[in-house]
Amino acid sequence: MGRGTLILGVDAGGTSTRAVLATADGTAVGYGTAGSGNPISVGRDGAVLGVRTAVAGALAQAGAPIEDVSLLVAAMAGNDASGPGGWLRDPLGAAGFRGRLAFDSDLLAMYFSGTVSDAGYGVVCGTGASVIRIEGGRTVATADGLGWLLGDRGSGFWIGHRAARAIVEDLDGTGEATAITEAAVARLGVDPGAEPDSPNGRRRELEAVIRAFYAARPVELASLAPLVFDAAEAGDAVADDILRGAGAELVRTFAAVHTVSGPVVVGGSILARSGPAQQVFADGVARLGADEGIVRVSDGAVGAAFLALRHAGREPGGAERDRLAETIAQRRAEREADGAGNARPPA
Amino acid sequence: MGRGTLILGVDAGGTSTRAVLATADGTAVGYGTAGSGNPISVGRDGAVLGVRTAVAGALAQAGAPIEDVSLLVAAMAGNDASGPGGWLRDPLGAAGFRGRLAFDSDLLAMYFSGTVSDAGYGVVCGTGASVIRIEGGRTVATADGLGWLLGDRGSGFWIGHRAARAIVEDLDGTGEATAITEAAVARLGVDPGAEPDSPNGRRRELEAVIRAFYAARPVELASLAPLVFDAAEAGDAVADDILRGAGAELVRTFAAVHTVSGPVVVGGSILARSGPAQQVFADGVARLGADEGIVRVSDGAVGAAFLALRHAGREPGGAERDRLAETIAQRRAEREADGAGNARPPA
Repeated sequence: MGRGTLILGVDAGGTSTRAVLATADGTAVGYGTAGSGNPISVGRDGAVLGVRTAVAGALAQAGAPIEDVSLLVAAMAGNDASGPGGWLRDPLGAAGFRGRLAFDSDLLAMYFSGTVSDAGYGVVCGTGASVIRIEGGRTVATADGLGWLLGDRGSGFWIGHRAARAIVEDLDGTGEATAITEAAVARLGVDPGAEPDSPNGRRRELEAVIRAFYAARPVELASLAPLVFDAAEAGDAVADDILRGAGAELVRTFAAVHTVSGPVVVGGSILARSGPAQQVFADGVARLGADEGIVRVSDGAVGAAFLALRHAGREPGGAERDRLAETIAQRRAEREADGAGNARPPA
Repeated sequence: MGRGTLILGVDAGGTSTRAVLATADGTAVGYGTAGSGNPISVGRDGAVLGVRTAVAGALAQAGAPIEDVSLLVAAMAGNDASGPGGWLRDPLGAAGFRGRLAFDSDLLAMYFSGTVSDAGYGVVCGTGASVIRIEGGRTVATADGLGWLLGDRGSGFWIGHRAARAIVEDLDGTGEATAITEAAVARLGVDPGAEPDSPNGRRRELEAVIRAFYAARPVELASLAPLVFDAAEAGDAVADDILRGAGAELVRTFAAVHTVSGPVVVGGSILARSGPAQQVFADGVARLGADEGIVRVSDGAVGAAFLALRHAGREPGGAERDRLAETIAQRRAEREADGAGNARPPA
């Protein structure tokens, strides 16, 4: 392929990272994955490891040296992506990278994984939640994405946090009974009948649950979200309320940035699972008249490569996006056939 | 006074600690204060320091050696108060304490600071929030007190957390405008007009506020509560809603343990300040028919000494409680006149 002819688009998320090595016409020639590449989630050292590991996997699949790469676009959230970027440029340089490094938005990468429309909406609802409005191919408005303490309304954390509170209110008699309690108590390994009530008139089971919830980092409450989906499917009213509430919160966030009609690209685990949240969100979006429909995407890999083409001075359109989507799918399938999985960290 | 004739009641709170040295008839002969004496707030070493400092202050005021003390009752929240207690007994022993150590509930100490009725309700709403029901002089039911992540509904944290979310929703356009925003932005030292919007269409001011809120420990959001009271007094609708919501949450928690009529002893800063929260709570309690009235107390010092008398095998009643209240007030006044303030940590 030769020096300086390739570009890299990296979709660096809080849980996993995807790197796409592509030619200038939008053909993916290598694809690699790794754990988190986001400094907010794993710190800068961890993020460097995630990005380098995914990049090494993509280069290895193509059999290309890093010297062939003229541009790397890292799509990631947060302040670390808005500064001079030496924290990522220096270790990439040490690994032989001589090209240009640029940052872009992970939400925009997700958006361009689902559409090439230069006006529309991107909705991400996984552990966190946010909505962006795109005009002229740029993010012009953002709602929520405020993190677990201040927002992320309707997110996996939001659902898990409400579930945790419903559980303790069920156990202390302030709230309604819910099937989420039994599922969570079983998963936490708390023995419901082991001990008598504590001297303050509180159930030992409740005290054990409280200790378990406080022992973990707050964001880990997001891991309760699947129990809420299960309970809602089994007809639990509290779980159903929580998920309808999540959908309603996402509609409210969407409404805060919604102006004109456009495609709505949706990523993240919460709106991927059918049920009350997805239904309430779809109904709410339809009512607002965003009638170009909802497009679901699994990640931002295609969009990160699309953004890399754009940073390279190309004006990519539908043909390039389709080619990227098709060839990325091929590279993924080849990796899976090879049993490659995640690449090992680079030496 | 002589060996073994005195008892100590210690009200060990999350912010401050009070020690009352008393004779067996309920006469306070020494009073000392210190910072937090609660292991949840400051760890066991910090709690030992708090308790020892307050105790040293009380002994110093009376001119009594610790060998004169036959019993120390530490009224404090949490699991550290329910175990064998060596973490506190050993350092007290090293300081010369040869008496008996017992733990009791900080909420019960607060309750007996306001009444000697052996059936009633204790409501604490400061940084946290909980309600207990007392029957036969013992705590038989507890609602909430679940901590900032899972409950403490209506507490200072709860109010501050809602304020923080109202502020960021005001700034990102998802929520209503509120006067709390301007007050908080000024206090955080964020310059509203300093920078243009960030590339993702989000106001720089918002990003600075988000950083400031995440930089502190979550419970520190409770420090926003006074701004909410101020804004509500000035007619701000969002602040008024938050405080009414806090009052309603406290009524809901109260209702979860309420059965028969009895006195309602209220402590903590939130219900001490007049305004919508206090009003909604008082109306709700009246509606539930807890018609023996609300008694406000500033702390649990009187009750901690009352509990110490009880642990000593006395059966204290109204006369002892009144004597404790009167003599504790005298000892406090003497300390203030001496300019003693907080005692220094013991050598």
